[in-house]
Amino acid sequence: MTAAPLAPELREKLRRAPVAALSAQLRRHGLDNVTIDGVRPLLPDRKVVGIARTLRFLPNREDLFHSHGRGYNAQKRAFDTVGEGEVLVIEARGEPGSGTLGDILALRAHARGAAAIVTDGGVRDIEAVTAVGIPVYAVGAHPAVLGRRHIPWDADLAIACGGATVVPGDIVVGDADGVIVIPPALAQEVADTALAQEDADAWIAEQVRAGHPVDGLFPMNATWRERYDAERARP
Amino acid sequence: MTAAPLAPELREKLRRAPVAALSAQLRRHGLDNVTIDGVRPLLPDRKVVGIARTLRFLPNREDLFHSHGRGYNAQKRAFDTVGEGEVLVIEARGEPGSGTLGDILALRAHARGAAAIVTDGGVRDIEAVTAVGIPVYAVGAHPAVLGRRHIPWDADLAIACGGATVVPGDIVVGDADGVIVIPPALAQEVADTALAQEDADAWIAEQVRAGHPVDGLFPMNATWRERYDAERARP
Amino acid sequence: MTAAPLAPELREKLRRAPVAALSAQLRRHGLDNVTIDGVRPLLPDRKVVGIARTLRFLPNREDLFHSHGRGYNAQKRAFDTVGEGEVLVIEARGEPGSGTLGDILALRAHARGAAAIVTDGGVRDIEAVTAVGIPVYAVGAHPAVLGRRHIPWDADLAIACGGATVVPGDIVVGDADGVIVIPPALAQEVADTALAQEDADAWIAEQVRAGHPVDGLFPMNATWRERYDAERARP
Amino acid sequence: MTAAPLAPELREKLRRAPVAALSAQLRRHGLDNVTIDGVRPLLPDRKVVGIARTLRFLPNREDLFHSHGRGYNAQKRAFDTVGEGEVLVIEARGEPGSGTLGDILALRAHARGAAAIVTDGGVRDIEAVTAVGIPVYAVGAHPAVLGRRHIPWDADLAIACGGATVVPGDIVVGDADGVIVIPPALAQEVADTALAQEDADAWIAEQVRAGHPVDGLFPMNATWRERYDAERARP
Amino acid sequence: MTAAPLAPELREKLRRAPVAALSAQLRRHGLDNVTIDGVRPLLPDRKVVGIARTLRFLPNREDLFHSHGRGYNAQKRAFDTVGEGEVLVIEARGEPGSGTLGDILALRAHARGAAAIVTDGGVRDIEAVTAVGIPVYAVGAHPAVLGRRHIPWDADLAIACGGATVVPGDIVVGDADGVIVIPPALAQEVADTALAQEDADAWIAEQVRAGHPVDGLFPMNATWRERYDAERARP
Amino acid sequence: MTAAPLAPELREKLRRAPVAALSAQLRRHGLDNVTIDGVRPLLPDRKVVGIARTLRFLPNREDLFHSHGRGYNAQKRAFDTVGEGEVLVIEARGEPGSGTLGDILALRAHARGAAAIVTDGGVRDIEAVTAVGIPVYAVGAHPAVLGRRHIPWDADLAIACGGATVVPGDIVVGDADGVIVIPPALAQEVADTALAQEDADAWIAEQVRAGHPVDGLFPMNATWRERYDAERARP
Repeated sequence: MTAAPLAPELREKLRRAPVAALSAQLRRHGLDNVTIDGVRPLLPDRKVVGIARTLRFLPNREDLFHSHGRGYNAQKRAFDTVGEGEVLVIEARGEPGSGTLGDILALRAHARGAAAIVTDGGVRDIEAVTAVGIPVYAVGAHPAVLGRRHIPWDADLAIACGGATVVPGDIVVGDADGVIVIPPALAQEVADTALAQEDADAWIAEQVRAGHPVDGLFPMNATWRERYDAERARP
Repeated sequence: MTAAPLAPELREKLRRAPVAALSAQLRRHGLDNVTIDGVRPLLPDRKVVGIARTLRFLPNREDLFHSHGRGYNAQKRAFDTVGEGEVLVIEARGEPGSGTLGDILALRAHARGAAAIVTDGGVRDIEAVTAVGIPVYAVGAHPAVLGRRHIPWDADLAIACGGATVVPGDIVVGDADGVIVIPPALAQEVADTALAQEDADAWIAEQVRAGHPVDGLFPMNATWRERYDAERARP
Repeated sequence: MTAAPLAPELREKLRRAPVAALSAQLRRHGLDNVTIDGVRPLLPDRKVVGIARTLRFLPNREDLFHSHGRGYNAQKRAFDTVGEGEVLVIEARGEPGSGTLGDILALRAHARGAAAIVTDGGVRDIEAVTAVGIPVYAVGAHPAVLGRRHIPWDADLAIACGGATVVPGDIVVGDADGVIVIPPALAQEVADTALAQEDADAWIAEQVRAGHPVDGLFPMNATWRERYDAERARP
Repeated sequence: MTAAPLAPELREKLRRAPVAALSAQLRRHGLDNVTIDGVRPLLPDRKVVGIARTLRFLPNREDLFHSHGRGYNAQKRAFDTVGEGEVLVIEARGEPGSGTLGDILALRAHARGAAAIVTDGGVRDIEAVTAVGIPVYAVGAHPAVLGRRHIPWDADLAIACGGATVVPGDIVVGDADGVIVIPPALAQEVADTALAQEDADAWIAEQVRAGHPVDGLFPMNATWRERYDAERARP
Repeated sequence: MTAAPLAPELREKLRRAPVAALSAQLRRHGLDNVTIDGVRPLLPDRKVVGIARTLRFLPNREDLFHSHGRGYNAQKRAFDTVGEGEVLVIEARGEPGSGTLGDILALRAHARGAAAIVTDGGVRDIEAVTAVGIPVYAVGAHPAVLGRRHIPWDADLAIACGGATVVPGDIVVGDADGVIVIPPALAQEVADTALAQEDADAWIAEQVRAGHPVDGLFPMNATWRERYDAERARP
Repeated sequence: MTAAPLAPELREKLRRAPVAALSAQLRRHGLDNVTIDGVRPLLPDRKVVGIARTLRFLPNREDLFHSHGRGYNAQKRAFDTVGEGEVLVIEARGEPGSGTLGDILALRAHARGAAAIVTDGGVRDIEAVTAVGIPVYAVGAHPAVLGRRHIPWDADLAIACGGATVVPGDIVVGDADGVIVIPPALAQEVADTALAQEDADAWIAEQVRAGHPVDGLFPMNATWRERYDAERARP
């Protein structure tokens, strides 16, 4: 199962829009619970944009680990089939006490062209995983293998990650501020308004840097808005 | 989907075996991660034995609540179809900030003959739910409706509840100590050895009450074991 | 400062409406963050309705405790001036490691006719406080005096308690499910619709008890609604 | 090793003094970190006074469990040797995920005349343990045996329990408010002043019940103090 | 409201004294609860010294957000009026789930000459805020706007931040170890003794580096003290 | 007390084996609870291998601090006697609210040739401690002296650190993934199999980098194993 790819133009817009700006626009649409919280980027300088694939772990239970945890399990199948431009999002219940991937699986996702991996569990071999070069968001490093805390169970269903629901096919965007989930139907509008707001905010920042108070300027009143529109209208 | 019912004799044995005794026997089989933790019984005097049915909630996400949260949703379908002698186990991610059932749904499960409800979320109308008479285990009371924190999503799949994995068809047993999940294939043996251990422990308790040290007695050495066997062998 | 008292008729309606029902109606008005979470009632059988008075504690800081913590401090002034029918709500930052009131202050509030005390801190002399008879909600018992964790600082300003903002003059309602804060302007409407919903829910409960599925009934479809209206219209 | 027993008169005074009153007096001596927090009494109506014996558990480590966890281990030796009037205090690191004692060990401590058991871990067979009649303070119920989370390691050394340091020979007092640790050298003075304060507080409570403000009365100013002294001086 | 500025000489001493050294001296004055915990510096190499200004957020409540959250609210007024050399300290209740400032407000504080911003909430646009160059301490990054978790409520009153009480006019000092609050009346003495202790500790460090045990040296006994005094007395 | 030193060859193998690889091998021996969790390295690039020495802190209790906390206490004695190649492991109960060592003690351990310091408490003077050059693992930075939260109590006994039991003489290995405790009797075998597994994993990583799926390769089936053995057998 590979979701419809992102149109290149939309992907490019999302790549330019900060996660903070996208978050503000989603809030205007009434969406407040769309951030994957408690994870941090191994490569904070890398912007992530992709389509969500999902993988679900359940708490380790010794009898089930024997049936589901070993060999070519759900985790490995997910990494072998993640597609170009996809973000593999893993439900690990916020559990920090084991790795949920290591360098070999990170390499596999990278080789498949995946855009990123997001897990609300830990990462093993954190230095090697970082060196692979695929952006990874995780709750931290832990040396233990998956089985200490988890059984890889199933994939391609809606999951909870970092307190947010992620549905396969959702758009996932990440930067140094964190990771956000965007319903596909809203992505175009949210990207456009976020970029417009970014432009206005950059202009406001210039005025503030020049010594203007935020009163009336942030948000802009009619006077400032007029001046902004005039400047932006210049050829 | 209704799982194979428990044989009456096995159900009766499990009803007599304390959860603590079953837990100790499961540990002998290498199963340590089988307790649903962080929940407490509304009716602590009631022993619970049943077959697991499952229901999964995901974190509230405003756009998905509109599509999945309203009307005859997954939650309501689960309560309308839970079977005689079944325990409805709900994955609510340990979130205390909303109810995950109220008195009407508790009544419905009770009317269907369900054995109990176990949720690692809250309960609304806790007095009314308690009055219904069906045993309920939950993390606490909260007045808010489900939608404050959750979207009812799907049912009849393996879930996480209170840190334990619960698979539909597992046997669920609860008492004042908590709730335990027993893989069906082990239930008969675990019930038998738990009851045998209970008998031995009751006899040990008598000796301790009479003033004997636990040294050599708990666990029993050969001398005490012999005496125990002799007493139990008497007509 | 004593807030305008509750009209007796409104107070009576709020006394009859469960907190869970009021919570559901507030949600319909877009208010989800109005519950004081993490507190439990010392007298779970007592319904609470009153007008909020507020008291704010800050973290103990040794130099400030000397200036603000002793003698006739903000805490004692608040208990000496809380009015008839008021609920004294205390900001204690969820800190369980000290008492925030004891039996003498509980007696004083009771003597003043206060409706209840809500604190997201601990209670000292929990048995004596319970015996006073004024409803108290708290995070638990702790033997230490206030000064172990707090400085009583000021009163009659908006505060945070149990994760909710409470403004003096808000209406506070509590029962076994917890405590809710109602903006005064919404109270009449919320009380009326909550009672109407309670009536409908009680009727639905009867049908469920009689064996009807919740499908179509909870919430009611047109057929059930018609039947309900007809029954309620009977003399 | 059995500590010097409490003098009967001191024991009686401590039995009459509420933990809250003792806590306030210890604070006057600069002792703020003497409460065992996060535990609750299985028998809230029972006052506890005794001399501390200690037992220390370490986190389960599979290789060490084999050498230290089985047979007549440190836990069982402690229960076999706890003395008349002693309180067995157990360091379980606040871990709720297993029992740290069950009914047989509770019976043994009871048969030895122990005053109470305090553990910042769980209790198995909570109903049976409660029925034994020895006061127990614990963080909650859990069905699992000790070995799920702990190795019984050693006894009769200073430990941490519920955030407080407990040294063998300390005096331990518990009631519904919680458990406090009193250095033996301070016990006599603290008990005397606590009882005196209790008497004064009871008299203050009477005045407050009669409608007096706490201003000037709690704490008492010279006028009230004079009146109090006069009344207490009456034959 | 702008507090009395720090005397340049005192400011310079505080700039040279490590927060750890100031903390040790405050403890000698009996002040243990003066650290703002749980925050980390965005610019760990930058020493911060300034006078506290305060800003208080309350939990988001939908009706109050409409009246207090929008336009030129308390947050924006605080950033527009923070003074030269002041540290804006924000009470955000330790809540990590939203930003409490972004780059435009950081720029404004920087343009006003503020010494730093300390918030026990999150930061949006963390890369842009870091680039502004004003030192910021926060609990982490979060992309969401303030309103997801907070209402900006009032300013210039005593607040709680990171578990410490901060009064407007307090002196705030921060470095890589964290942030400390110093009552103004103690600042001169604490700065002087901290610098003296730093000098002694640096000398002790030299001796330890040279292979001396800490026994007798740290803290210094009479012999070492004499040698230290002699060396420091040399021209 | 100085434990038997590590044989140089074993030390060298452990230095080359990643903690993640050692963890996986210990799990094969049934040891899952051997990681010191919740600590992070001040020098993440430095591999640590050494023999455990232990030091135990108890919660600050004001009367005991006077007798045990000052002068040449257990903490200072431990740093003065830690041996060449030893890792000083400190039990601080995960408490972040004070330092548990500063630069002078770090220098002393470094001068004694200690391999590292591991504490599940905080570090004071974090920049100076980092500059000393001895690897330190801690829960974070805090400016306060030890006595704010702890009393240094005793040394050279089994302790709990970061959720793991550490016995003096255990082998401690740390890298960017975290810290692991190895029972000495298993060290040789675990090091050998970990290095062998590392070699195999490196070869697997090459295949994955070349585009092979993990199916059949990770873990290796017979075909891949044969190819691997053949390549490794080449001169």
